[in-house]
Amino acid sequence: MSQPDVIAENASQSIQEIVQAIGKRARSSSRAMAKASTEQKNQALLFMAQMIRGQTQTLKQANAKDLQRARDAGHDDAFIDRLALTDKVIETMAQGIQQIVTLQDPIGQLTPVVKRPTGIEVSQMRVPLGVIGIIYESRPNVTIDAAALCIKSGNATILRGGSEAIDSNTALAKIIQASLQKAGLPKDGVQVIETIDRAAVGAMITMTEYIDVIVPRGGKSLIARLMAESRVPMIKHLDGICHTYVDDEADITKSITVCDNAKTQRYSPCNAMETLLVHSKVATQLLLPLCKIYQDKGVELRVCRKTKAILAQSGFAGMSLLKDATEEDWTTEYLAPILSIKTVDSIDEAIDHINQYGSHHTDAIMTENLAKAARFQKEVDSASVIHNASTRFADGFEYGLGAEIGISNDKLHARGPVGLEGLTSLKYIVKGDGSIRT
Amino acid sequence: MSQPDVIAENASQSIQEIVQAIGKRARSSSRAMAKASTEQKNQALLFMAQMIRGQTQTLKQANAKDLQRARDAGHDDAFIDRLALTDKVIETMAQGIQQIVTLQDPIGQLTPVVKRPTGIEVSQMRVPLGVIGIIYESRPNVTIDAAALCIKSGNATILRGGSEAIDSNTALAKIIQASLQKAGLPKDGVQVIETIDRAAVGAMITMTEYIDVIVPRGGKSLIARLMAESRVPMIKHLDGICHTYVDDEADITKSITVCDNAKTQRYSPCNAMETLLVHSKVATQLLLPLCKIYQDKGVELRVCRKTKAILAQSGFAGMSLLKDATEEDWTTEYLAPILSIKTVDSIDEAIDHINQYGSHHTDAIMTENLAKAARFQKEVDSASVIHNASTRFADGFEYGLGAEIGISNDKLHARGPVGLEGLTSLKYIVKGDGSIRT
Repeated sequence: MSQPDVIAENASQSIQEIVQAIGKRARSSSRAMAKASTEQKNQALLFMAQMIRGQTQTLKQANAKDLQRARDAGHDDAFIDRLALTDKVIETMAQGIQQIVTLQDPIGQLTPVVKRPTGIEVSQMRVPLGVIGIIYESRPNVTIDAAALCIKSGNATILRGGSEAIDSNTALAKIIQASLQKAGLPKDGVQVIETIDRAAVGAMITMTEYIDVIVPRGGKSLIARLMAESRVPMIKHLDGICHTYVDDEADITKSITVCDNAKTQRYSPCNAMETLLVHSKVATQLLLPLCKIYQDKGVELRVCRKTKAILAQSGFAGMSLLKDATEEDWTTEYLAPILSIKTVDSIDEAIDHINQYGSHHTDAIMTENLAKAARFQKEVDSASVIHNASTRFADGFEYGLGAEIGISNDKLHARGPVGLEGLTSLKYIVKGDGSIRT
Repeated sequence: MSQPDVIAENASQSIQEIVQAIGKRARSSSRAMAKASTEQKNQALLFMAQMIRGQTQTLKQANAKDLQRARDAGHDDAFIDRLALTDKVIETMAQGIQQIVTLQDPIGQLTPVVKRPTGIEVSQMRVPLGVIGIIYESRPNVTIDAAALCIKSGNATILRGGSEAIDSNTALAKIIQASLQKAGLPKDGVQVIETIDRAAVGAMITMTEYIDVIVPRGGKSLIARLMAESRVPMIKHLDGICHTYVDDEADITKSITVCDNAKTQRYSPCNAMETLLVHSKVATQLLLPLCKIYQDKGVELRVCRKTKAILAQSGFAGMSLLKDATEEDWTTEYLAPILSIKTVDSIDEAIDHINQYGSHHTDAIMTENLAKAARFQKEVDSASVIHNASTRFADGFEYGLGAEIGISNDKLHARGPVGLEGLTSLKYIVKGDGSIRT
């Protein structure tokens, strides 16, 4: 089993010191990144896309070492799949960068100027956050996606990918840094932490003086650990317990199509539906055909007592396959072909259930009654509230952000899918003419 | 010495349990607060103003107990001053509430709808954050200010004032809750923690399930402790080490007026100037008259070596009163009649000094060169960057926010003076017509 090609900066330095030194360089280069013109940033990105395409072989060789170690360590096929840099993945990375080049540069935008009675003129300017830390699992394509978004938004970046992808990430880091330099930007504008020691993550999440925000990308256990320990603010979501509520005034045909899509189009995304709520008045009409579709696709259904009784009464053929939902089901994100179903007697019961058991990620209502839709959208306390469409639309590309660094369930700063703007802040710009306060 | 009129909810409950119960009630009432119409919220505020004016005697009696204990405990005059509910303070509180009634309600505002190629329509709706915790010192007027802003922005609120103001705050809480109820809103929409046990603060700052954001208002030691221990996100600033840089292309007359105002108009606010940076080319011209003004007003000047030499060479009369600035002076927020002065040789040196030693609060440039002003405003990494005006303008009222819950030096969420909008977030509102993702 080959060893990763990792060179610690200095064997005698502790991980803490290494990461601190990286942080210091990031902070210092963040000023040049913030000043960079749109042209310079786009140039760096285009160089990066070009080099990725030109160095496909080098990247695949580095990746082969990671893949070999991952296989030796007994990782499963899904893991290997996410780790692999195939020709297709490499081309998709290059295209992703080009897509980010086409996005409008948010930096330097000004809000309308307001003239105050004192004579001062006040507006707000969009500026980078400063230094972004990205902590992610062994998916080398995230290295490129995240770096490109942070460059375009004028931030310096510290990337810490899964240790199993260390050779791939080191090779990608070389390309990113060379691209920055070719465009006249500091190479430390993007740094990859090239040590497999997991203590590096612990150092990053407490380094408030050098990192302004951390964006974790990965599974629930990673996020939960970071939430418990991080002193640096994060843009993140822990889970997506997404609901669709089918109202008694819903169009049943539309609802069947949408509920099918929300659950089965893909099982693993955070915006897939995990709980279906149905009004008792339309439960039979909706559930008879819909549950058959789910069962035909192999989706396990966990239903409340009322739902079970309704299905039994109406002679549902798949009764023997149903499971009883427990209290735990209402707070579980399956990310799998499992769906919990609850029959409710009113829109209020649906809203209360969602606000109590949901994760404030994405929830939908199916109804033809616009007043009820408006009430649901106002009262459901989630980052995305959707009317007559699949929860699967909750996504930066689908919303027109052009790209997505992640999704936030938090209420401060960016909420929902986070694009370039989420990596910026607004500062006040004030102009006077010798003005003083009296 | 009288004992505070505090009734623990149940003597056998721990502080942790009491605060958790308050949190649970806040979360539950936050839904009704979020749904409240503008009229209802304004009604509650107007009742509150009316009752405050009507119950001046009751308030002053409660306050008298706090004042007596504070005097017995040996608190100084400034402390007593901030604690006192005089007729004037009470009238100012009532007027403050009426001012908030006139502000536009941000809740429910929608961003322009964008129609996507898939047919879905996407916009963002402004909604309350949910539950706001306010932790502050013994200033009962903050109880009313903070409650009024949180009510108007549709949030539920938990207030924890300094234990020395417990009787005043308990009396004010009764008025606030009665006003809410009179307007048909839940009385638990605003709760005051009525226990003097300091463990209550520890319980609040870890109660992430019930509190969405904490706004601390108080001195540096309070904020520093909360920063170290809070698990709930905060809207806060630790200190205001504010600079004015007088450029070689500055108008000297304007600069003298502005620098005088920035330092001496009031010494204690966080937006008062603490360090003056002056370009060497105009140092003599500016400093000779300005340092005389400062010394006449009793401001102690701590100057760098270059500044001292320049003043000596030009025959400055107050040489004997000058002190030498140490490295520590550049990172000190005096909040007192003390000013550090440094002579620099370029705008770059000024920007570097501010970004390195400042607190990212408020910094100003005096110059008639618009290109230099623009560069300074772009490159100085502070919440407010001001051109040709006093740093003292960094304030929610001065910027036209109508009110201010606090000032944030952080880059996530609200930055700079924070008004009603800072107590809200945007959620995505999506509309389809049976739309599915393919």
